[in-house]
Amino acid sequence: MGLLVRELGEFGLIERLQAIVWRSDARLLVNIGDDAAVVRYDRPVVMTTDALVEGIHFRDDLIDPVSLGYKSLVASLSDIAAMGGRPLHTLVALALPFEERVERIEAIYRGLAEACTQYDVSIVGGDVVSTAGPLVITVTVTGELLGAKPLLRSGAQVGDVVFVTGDVGGAAAYLHLKTSSEALRVSESDEWLLQQRHQRPVPQITAGSILAQYEGCTSANDVSDGLSSELHEIAAASGVQLLIDSERLPTLPAVRHYARLARVNPLDFALFGGEDYQLVGTLDRMAVGTFLPLMQAQGVRVSLIGQVKRGNAGVYLQTPTGIHQLPKKGYDHFAARDERT
Amino acid sequence: MGLLVRELGEFGLIERLQAIVWRSDARLLVNIGDDAAVVRYDRPVVMTTDALVEGIHFRDDLIDPVSLGYKSLVASLSDIAAMGGRPLHTLVALALPFEERVERIEAIYRGLAEACTQYDVSIVGGDVVSTAGPLVITVTVTGELLGAKPLLRSGAQVGDVVFVTGDVGGAAAYLHLKTSSEALRVSESDEWLLQQRHQRPVPQITAGSILAQYEGCTSANDVSDGLSSELHEIAAASGVQLLIDSERLPTLPAVRHYARLARVNPLDFALFGGEDYQLVGTLDRMAVGTFLPLMQAQGVRVSLIGQVKRGNAGVYLQTPTGIHQLPKKGYDHFAARDERT
Repeated sequence: MGLLVRELGEFGLIERLQAIVWRSDARLLVNIGDDAAVVRYDRPVVMTTDALVEGIHFRDDLIDPVSLGYKSLVASLSDIAAMGGRPLHTLVALALPFEERVERIEAIYRGLAEACTQYDVSIVGGDVVSTAGPLVITVTVTGELLGAKPLLRSGAQVGDVVFVTGDVGGAAAYLHLKTSSEALRVSESDEWLLQQRHQRPVPQITAGSILAQYEGCTSANDVSDGLSSELHEIAAASGVQLLIDSERLPTLPAVRHYARLARVNPLDFALFGGEDYQLVGTLDRMAVGTFLPLMQAQGVRVSLIGQVKRGNAGVYLQTPTGIHQLPKKGYDHFAARDERT
Repeated sequence: MGLLVRELGEFGLIERLQAIVWRSDARLLVNIGDDAAVVRYDRPVVMTTDALVEGIHFRDDLIDPVSLGYKSLVASLSDIAAMGGRPLHTLVALALPFEERVERIEAIYRGLAEACTQYDVSIVGGDVVSTAGPLVITVTVTGELLGAKPLLRSGAQVGDVVFVTGDVGGAAAYLHLKTSSEALRVSESDEWLLQQRHQRPVPQITAGSILAQYEGCTSANDVSDGLSSELHEIAAASGVQLLIDSERLPTLPAVRHYARLARVNPLDFALFGGEDYQLVGTLDRMAVGTFLPLMQAQGVRVSLIGQVKRGNAGVYLQTPTGIHQLPKKGYDHFAARDERT
């Protein structure tokens, strides 16, 4: 079974976790170990916090603890990227079940540290407490604004083009595959790809930094609750209509293969799945020619998936059979509980 | 019973909470409602996070929800003050039980908002999720460093004087009173005072700002886990010996009355109680004459409770019967669970 956290004690655990996450950082004036961390920023500060709960946001039969730590950080890095910020520091608060094992918490921290190394972020503090309930991981990330202005949800203009980075629906397809009651035969490589989308999402920090540093990105949002939900947020905040072309939504072949096998519309994965951590937003039509080569040069895939139209604020989907109003269907943590857990 | 959070839904709840906490703030470039907040800081950034769990850190028979919200913020404000920082912004993440009532969460937010108004801090974001376990409140506070250097735990020098602000032991005495199996008769005014110490602690922001802006404060820590535990942290970080005079520990008469009634040593409340949110630290002997009048002029009570001595690092207590090594006895969230819950 291994050592329990309560056998090791709070201070013993913190010491072990510190050893895992310690890294040098020229901006860091005071590191872990005092009442608070002190960092030096030269530009406006971007900050976000996200809580992840076992049984709601993750299940240990669907994600290993190292990936869980990695993904917990990515969720917040993605929010910073969507503002046009560069993530720099993180604080991690853990509420641990009484019977929690040291091994699992160390593995989660190794995943956090891995993402930190990859995206040049330092863990500068946190808190470890116990709970009678399931594990709760709360990650706060702070960073610096890169451009002159933050990327907001509210700037989309009639005539703009709607874009999304990477591909969407992979994380949702993996969840569907692993929680399906049918035994569906998926190729090993397809399953691996879908698993990567679920367990190791890539925060779009590079894309966000390009969008922030050149003129012409009029709105941006990260895809955490599902592409449709994020599009609705942009439409509402900007007071515009978005017309999305279903044929242009970027999905992995593995998602389309699996959808066919499971007799699910792949658009359901792409639009309502969530946890893609891509960026979606709008570009001034004249700036598309600037952004696409810049993104391409940095290895960021971008798809132009629709347009900003005059008309009632809302989101519409153009499919081969016509134009349909697109439901939000974003994951609501309370209303949709029974569906997801 | 009132409305349940899951009946209202995540987005409905967030809208209500936003209305409670909204305030104008010239530093705030992007407020609640986008992927992340953006704020403007002119000096190094101080940041801390604290998680509070129902049944561990608070019980609804010992604290009303408005005070709980208030106190949740104070715990983090106190950490910023202990670094010599000015708290400015906060992010609040809530993990809510499935049967959570909207009314209680709104009350917690009113308490958070009350503390924000009082200490000039803005809630700029957060997260609301559900959990199968008890309520978890995770508060992150960021602020600006006030002085040229942060106040650390590690600078105490032989010859320095040990100080503590305000009084200690009141929060612990209240917990003891309310969880005692004996029916002890305490005067109404004493009980009210002890309740204030437990439910409405005062973060030492003014004291921290004075300590940060003048030369001569060589170490500082806030009293969250208990005075003894915090003194041990300073002794260990600074590599010095602290000799504390038991007769100089500042306690309320209400604490001493109650201790006599309950046949408890009042020093137990003062040294091992915790949640006092006072500042403890060391002053260069030559600077005492500068700090005391400055503190007094701002209404901050300061007691000089001991000295930094040459010798083995550690904390010793001078009592009328002699000098004793002082145990840490800080609250350990795992080891001490059975005692506290």
